[in-house]
Amino acid sequence: MSVNVRIVLVNTTHPGNIGGVARAMKNMKFEELHLVAPKKFPHPNADARASGATDLLESAVIHETLEDAIADCQLVVGTSARGRHIPWPIVDPRELASIVSPIMTDKKVAIVFGREDRGLTNEELHLCHHHVHIPSNEAFSSLNLAAAVQVITYELRMASLYAEQNAVHKPQWGTDWDIDLADSADLERLFAHMEQTLIDIDFLDPDSPRQLMPRLRRLYLRSLLDKVEVNVLRGILTATQKQVKE
Amino acid sequence: MSVNVRIVLVNTTHPGNIGGVARAMKNMKFEELHLVAPKKFPHPNADARASGATDLLESAVIHETLEDAIADCQLVVGTSARGRHIPWPIVDPRELASIVSPIMTDKKVAIVFGREDRGLTNEELHLCHHHVHIPSNEAFSSLNLAAAVQVITYELRMASLYAEQNAVHKPQWGTDWDIDLADSADLERLFAHMEQTLIDIDFLDPDSPRQLMPRLRRLYLRSLLDKVEVNVLRGILTATQKQVKE
Repeated sequence: MSVNVRIVLVNTTHPGNIGGVARAMKNMKFEELHLVAPKKFPHPNADARASGATDLLESAVIHETLEDAIADCQLVVGTSARGRHIPWPIVDPRELASIVSPIMTDKKVAIVFGREDRGLTNEELHLCHHHVHIPSNEAFSSLNLAAAVQVITYELRMASLYAEQNAVHKPQWGTDWDIDLADSADLERLFAHMEQTLIDIDFLDPDSPRQLMPRLRRLYLRSLLDKVEVNVLRGILTATQKQVKE
Repeated sequence: MSVNVRIVLVNTTHPGNIGGVARAMKNMKFEELHLVAPKKFPHPNADARASGATDLLESAVIHETLEDAIADCQLVVGTSARGRHIPWPIVDPRELASIVSPIMTDKKVAIVFGREDRGLTNEELHLCHHHVHIPSNEAFSSLNLAAAVQVITYELRMASLYAEQNAVHKPQWGTDWDIDLADSADLERLFAHMEQTLIDIDFLDPDSPRQLMPRLRRLYLRSLLDKVEVNVLRGILTATQKQVKE
């Protein structure tokens, strides 16, 4: 999937943060980095923090103004703290992803991040269709620049992955399980074997069974056992029965 | 809202990353930082990257082993790359948040992050109930440690903010559970007892253990055992050991 999402950094002070942004972007499979008047770039600190994403730094496009950086984009979103002077349509990163994800393969989208110390100016924010706000701790709200890019690009990636997987069968436990699940007949044989073994070792009194078997059934049933696990448990039961004193 | 989510960093090499994690946590309103055998801590690089979250560094709890760091936790989640030897229940950060968010005010939850270069060992991962994987770019999958913590804590914060809005309380297993969940120390005692019993009944050969204990750990851990269930299982183990022929 090729995406047209451009990350735009305005007036970044620390080149290390540009490197951190490149790494965060590449982790989430985004490639287009645009820089508006960075203070120091290129710079060894950027390369160091990029940690293997230096290709994004090499292909980064540098602009003198934000207007230039977003000129060919159909959707521009600015990152913002809350409580700006004029209320603007503001979304959280998840809502942003639901807006951007359906259009990001055929429209050009820019997501604009401001300066480390004071973000975007009102004039810059007013160039944007929407504002996005990461709902951080009100008492400690300022994220590191690379962390903010990580959160936004993560949400975009999740939205596109979920869109791809929609209506696709989700495998057991969220991973490809290597073994078929046990069927009900397997499980009933297991429980019968378990009950007999517990009687054999004098743990279960058939005249006063209490809630022992229901508790064990609940435990094993909610695990959704696979066939190998059932065989392992039955092997343990058989080995236990061999130990029983006559 | 007070939350009981503990971020556990195992064997971190670069103290700057510990500072970055503290900042990411505080941005998302998490406070409990636990460190297992950090290479260098405290350290000025940690303070610098924490950027105002030094209170979390000062209150960080240092442990010698991961077992100590999670002993009193009822839910332990390890961060993992995909494709481990034995499949384990694996969730993405959003699914993790849906599991953790309903219980994070009254259960102790640990989320465990591994070393910068090679994550958690299989043994460490086998201490965890679930694994979480951030669905990063397959070709460039390794997130910076602070970025990974940022993504996970962001998802937890979003889930709790959304949950507050919906005011829906989703109890454990979709029903009111009658018994407290076992904590990690209970479970480790159970597994030690189980392993010894399996050796006693000649089912487990300590010289050739194969994948038996990992398979059993996976089975019981994904059930999220409660304290009565642990007692029942240990009772069965003790009754089994009494049968062992001399």
